[in-house]
Amino acid sequence: MKISCKKADLAKGVQIVSKAVPAKSSIKIQECILIEAKGGTIHLTGNDLELGIRTEISGTVVQEGAIAVEAKFFSELVRKLPEGEVVIDTEDDVQATVKCKKVKFDIAVKSGDEYSRIPAIEKKESIILSEFDLKEAVRQTIFSISDSESNKMMTGELFEISKNKLRVASLDGHRISIRNLTLDEEYEERKVIVPGKTLTEIAKIIGNDPDIDIEIYFTKDHILFDLDETVAVSRLIDGDYFDINRMISGDYEIKLEVNKKELQECIDRATLLLKDKTNHPILMDIGEKDVEFKVKTGVGSMNERLEITKEGKEMVIGFNPRYLLDMLRVIDEEKISLYLTNPKAPCVVKDEKKSYLYLVLPVNISKAA
Amino acid sequence: MKISCKKADLAKGVQIVSKAVPAKSSIKIQECILIEAKGGTIHLTGNDLELGIRTEISGTVVQEGAIAVEAKFFSELVRKLPEGEVVIDTEDDVQATVKCKKVKFDIAVKSGDEYSRIPAIEKKESIILSEFDLKEAVRQTIFSISDSESNKMMTGELFEISKNKLRVASLDGHRISIRNLTLDEEYEERKVIVPGKTLTEIAKIIGNDPDIDIEIYFTKDHILFDLDETVAVSRLIDGDYFDINRMISGDYEIKLEVNKKELQECIDRATLLLKDKTNHPILMDIGEKDVEFKVKTGVGSMNERLEITKEGKEMVIGFNPRYLLDMLRVIDEEKISLYLTNPKAPCVVKDEKKSYLYLVLPVNISKAA
Repeated sequence: MKISCKKADLAKGVQIVSKAVPAKSSIKIQECILIEAKGGTIHLTGNDLELGIRTEISGTVVQEGAIAVEAKFFSELVRKLPEGEVVIDTEDDVQATVKCKKVKFDIAVKSGDEYSRIPAIEKKESIILSEFDLKEAVRQTIFSISDSESNKMMTGELFEISKNKLRVASLDGHRISIRNLTLDEEYEERKVIVPGKTLTEIAKIIGNDPDIDIEIYFTKDHILFDLDETVAVSRLIDGDYFDINRMISGDYEIKLEVNKKELQECIDRATLLLKDKTNHPILMDIGEKDVEFKVKTGVGSMNERLEITKEGKEMVIGFNPRYLLDMLRVIDEEKISLYLTNPKAPCVVKDEKKSYLYLVLPVNISKAA
Repeated sequence: MKISCKKADLAKGVQIVSKAVPAKSSIKIQECILIEAKGGTIHLTGNDLELGIRTEISGTVVQEGAIAVEAKFFSELVRKLPEGEVVIDTEDDVQATVKCKKVKFDIAVKSGDEYSRIPAIEKKESIILSEFDLKEAVRQTIFSISDSESNKMMTGELFEISKNKLRVASLDGHRISIRNLTLDEEYEERKVIVPGKTLTEIAKIIGNDPDIDIEIYFTKDHILFDLDETVAVSRLIDGDYFDINRMISGDYEIKLEVNKKELQECIDRATLLLKDKTNHPILMDIGEKDVEFKVKTGVGSMNERLEITKEGKEMVIGFNPRYLLDMLRVIDEEKISLYLTNPKAPCVVKDEKKSYLYLVLPVNISKAA
């Protein structure tokens, strides 16, 4: 194989596909980036066997072939090359020469034959979403997936398409995050569970331009993101996702309207008093005209009053402050509405346009007092 | 004790004195910041018993007293308070109330009585140096102190004053770094060894304004940095520093003039081939018109030619690339001169104005070939 391309193009491609290269893999060759030169085009691939990313880079194919290069080393090497034309030349499947201006590196490589390429996906059923919408929806929900593998479904996010609506949702047993997006067209009904890791990595390689469209294709087992020169294919998670509608239905007896920034700063301060891992609740003492927030731990105690607009009764309820904080960080509105019922029922934060809904379960405050 | 001050002033003071607070100390109370309110002024102190920093903050003393607060927690707390007037009030030596606007924290504190304050230093003999000069001299030499406690003197830097000259130097057995500064006045001859950690922390709390002067006082055992509201006092390291002049004297048989940036980038690339901790040398093959840099390790090999202006013979010499790189990173000149003699003699990099001199020992290249 012999190829020639600009350093900047190579560096950009390497950075993109590296997102799918595992740091450690039981299949050693998947810790590599595949470089393929065929029919006049150069492709790079990273693939951890759940998520695979393949990208085309501009350049010249002098001799066709495919080699695998250790991803971490190769990406550092490319980054440190001077700006200019890079020539990668390999006589055999063991060693390659990387030349750029007066710099010459000889590095170990592997044959590309053994490398697991990304699966071939039939591009049939798709939806279209802007970079901005996808990136935001992921950012605003990804924090409430579970990182425990004991319930695989909780490590993914629900993508539910119904007519011209897309619902992106995650839950971890303590809270639910939902973002509702409006699509430009109507599509067939579809419910899939996309691995959280896939969404995290995709969000890193896309921009946030509301005018750039991403085509997302589905098959029974896979999701494919078509980003022009780059294609990302991920396995889906098997199973029927939780019945979210059942979990969030219900009436509320109390409605609080509060300044989001003030609430977030108050709860952020409260987390000072938590030592790592311990879960002391923050108490919300909902009074006539304000809410008093109180935390007491071994480190010290805090209390702070926030002004609120309230409909409904007075009560005291406790929450894990970290869960409230995670939610508040991704809500961009200035004023938010909290809906409550009793000290054992969840708190729901939602807007009138139904663009988002967050649910957080309370904690038992009889233990905390 | 009861004091009142602006959040911003408190936060700035806490940040400064925190530089002298140890993360862990066998004397628990030194992990605290001391807050002293006396005679109308408020002082904060951090002291790890080698370096102590004391700073005055604006504010009102309502009731005199002294308490110690756990540094890490208190600095996070202050940072997260809203902007506004902070009142710290303590009835006893066990608990304090911190109030700011509608926020109220009760936190555990200790009596200030047990806290080791910074030693009283007689301000007699001093030199004057600008922030810029001190900060630069430290940055340009601190990398070649030793972090091994087996030779205590190597963990510090020499400050040698002779008439209107200040020499700042460090060495670790493999290399020497020297910066020579001109002072505005002539001072008494003096040689002291300042702990590297002290210099690192001082460099963090000073700006880099060439028009702001720092007064540095000396006693037999201490150095004191007078930074207006802030005073930093550090122990000196005992002993007679190495005879640097003897180490760097000598003639050179080869002089190379080379572009600093090109050399630095070349050697930076070479470090790609080093696995953590291993010390493969980079070979400099000094030819008629250029120098070829070569590295070969288990990871791969590199070679690169740089154009040079040369006086003297041809030869091959090897260096630890990390040592060359550390030195090149702190030299700001565009062109530098390297002086060499033979493959077993050190490489010296110095300027004609004698503002700096760096020495790096070569490595035995018969092992590397």
